[in-house]
Amino acid sequence: MRRSTRVLIAYDSRRGTVEQLAQAVTAGALTVDGVEAVMKRVGEVTREDLLECDGLAIGSPVHSGMVSVPVKQFFDDWQFRFDFYPSRLMDGRVGAVFAAGGQAAGGREAVMTMLILAMLHHRMLVVSGGGALGASAMTENKPVPIDASELAEAGALGQRLAEMARLVAEGRRAFAAVS
Amino acid sequence: MRRSTRVLIAYDSRRGTVEQLAQAVTAGALTVDGVEAVMKRVGEVTREDLLECDGLAIGSPVHSGMVSVPVKQFFDDWQFRFDFYPSRLMDGRVGAVFAAGGQAAGGREAVMTMLILAMLHHRMLVVSGGGALGASAMTENKPVPIDASELAEAGALGQRLAEMARLVAEGRRAFAAVS
Amino acid sequence: MRRSTRVLIAYDSRRGTVEQLAQAVTAGALTVDGVEAVMKRVGEVTREDLLECDGLAIGSPVHSGMVSVPVKQFFDDWQFRFDFYPSRLMDGRVGAVFAAGGQAAGGREAVMTMLILAMLHHRMLVVSGGGALGASAMTENKPVPIDASELAEAGALGQRLAEMARLVAEGRRAFAAVS
Amino acid sequence: MRRSTRVLIAYDSRRGTVEQLAQAVTAGALTVDGVEAVMKRVGEVTREDLLECDGLAIGSPVHSGMVSVPVKQFFDDWQFRFDFYPSRLMDGRVGAVFAAGGQAAGGREAVMTMLILAMLHHRMLVVSGGGALGASAMTENKPVPIDASELAEAGALGQRLAEMARLVAEGRRAFAAVS
Repeated sequence: MRRSTRVLIAYDSRRGTVEQLAQAVTAGALTVDGVEAVMKRVGEVTREDLLECDGLAIGSPVHSGMVSVPVKQFFDDWQFRFDFYPSRLMDGRVGAVFAAGGQAAGGREAVMTMLILAMLHHRMLVVSGGGALGASAMTENKPVPIDASELAEAGALGQRLAEMARLVAEGRRAFAAVS
Repeated sequence: MRRSTRVLIAYDSRRGTVEQLAQAVTAGALTVDGVEAVMKRVGEVTREDLLECDGLAIGSPVHSGMVSVPVKQFFDDWQFRFDFYPSRLMDGRVGAVFAAGGQAAGGREAVMTMLILAMLHHRMLVVSGGGALGASAMTENKPVPIDASELAEAGALGQRLAEMARLVAEGRRAFAAVS
Repeated sequence: MRRSTRVLIAYDSRRGTVEQLAQAVTAGALTVDGVEAVMKRVGEVTREDLLECDGLAIGSPVHSGMVSVPVKQFFDDWQFRFDFYPSRLMDGRVGAVFAAGGQAAGGREAVMTMLILAMLHHRMLVVSGGGALGASAMTENKPVPIDASELAEAGALGQRLAEMARLVAEGRRAFAAVS
Repeated sequence: MRRSTRVLIAYDSRRGTVEQLAQAVTAGALTVDGVEAVMKRVGEVTREDLLECDGLAIGSPVHSGMVSVPVKQFFDDWQFRFDFYPSRLMDGRVGAVFAAGGQAAGGREAVMTMLILAMLHHRMLVVSGGGALGASAMTENKPVPIDASELAEAGALGQRLAEMARLVAEGRRAFAAVS
């Protein structure tokens, strides 16, 4: 019997936009057969949550063109509180990223790029989905802060992450069986 | 019987430093059981080479703080000659990156980051290894342009890429078998 | 009598969108008193054009998430044909950037960032304007490839660049006068 | 009589390496005639310090491949506590960056790039110096965490920043005089 694949959606949100994206990522992941998905604010994510997940999506608001302070703190916790480095305990888990910010070309790419690189530092496998780097929403000068196409991007990212996390987990079990 | 995993190492090199890294990446990949690895200059890589590979490492010199023109052209070929976008024919292959350049903090990260993002645009799974983002060598103000620790980084990247490409290929077969 | 300030707008354009932005940047620069502005395709820009300018805007399409091949080639020419490095002949000129590409968060920031860093490698002073990093246009899924707010961004960038280039040129003259 | 040019060096430091760079940047700035330079930890920098400076260097350790939490918080303060956005009160000041981190290609470029982009968001003029993007030090696998060539880079950055801040301040006064 196949063990279920666990996907964790970790996010920070000041005004609720990233939280809406996180909900859509979670819903997208749950459409995949055999996948459990749970979303938590970064400050509530425990060491065990991270060690038990097969796939991890991280979402951040764009503040000052960078990730928010809680998301920055979250990654420092990986190193300084959780001892994930240099032990590399996140090695081989599948990662994906999402972001929300104000301007059209004002930091969403930078934030997604920084999240991707931080995941690679920890030896995670990174996948994209939704948009070119991940899912994102622009929040300024629009009738609603987050629109249907952006929510669809986030759903596609969640589904993609869940599928790839399941595939890698299958590979690990198949490989262990024949080795 | 398990099909072998194919790893392609595509690179550009003006002075030979990136070529030396490419050789070390290839040698590292070949240490992994069940893996075939071949290296080619980006201009010689065919559409079929790309479609047949399970893992792909791309290496570039740092010119003007960016990838070299041949490496840039290579990626444009994916879209404009090979029709990999929007068909996303590279979807699910495992990618890794390497770079060589002059100054200590003068473009190797930028080049590796751009290669990583381009792979993600094409829906590849990206892994790191060797250094934080991939393998790299600094070429200025050193007794030799590339030293033993840099070659070891490149070897580690090749091994890592081969292992992860094999794992993902196993996962795909295992998943197909039970679906 | 004050010498006029020269602003050069160098761009590449495949479908005409970046060219429209370049025209708006040029028009914006020309609104500034005492400023001459000329736009040229990157392949037509000479060494003298660059050495005579006080301000330089560079615009690129987003191809494969990176600058276009002609723009990449342009920067390599600075080093390999024009001998601007390590002589640093572009030192102290004021630079600004613009870009056009398809997706919402699919490469415009990356392209503008790479242009900014390349200018800094050559010791230029970089300014933003219009958007957070420079002016940009998104070309997919819109009624027209470039809209009025994007053209306004480009105009604002041109004006900003011209003002700052004029200010720096004034500073250089004032300083020379009292030294 | 010419008013002196004020340069502020704002930094965060956990182990002292960035502080050593900050001292060298400060010393470099002080070699420039007519320049006052002061260094402060980011948490001690006041709104007035920022509004009174002509040039600003910001230095950060590399933590998790990104700026440290105090540096991230510092930029958020610009927006949320100091009201520098959207008023753009930092407009036209000259900025420069420096960083220290462990690995050869493990985040120093990323950190300097993020600092540069954040300064551009606030309409500062950005200059490089020392290295390609600014001054930096690598701290791992070396006999001493920071060596003479890295300190020289930092000194060159401080001098460069001071000269350009003075030039821009001169330009502003000269321009005001004739307008």
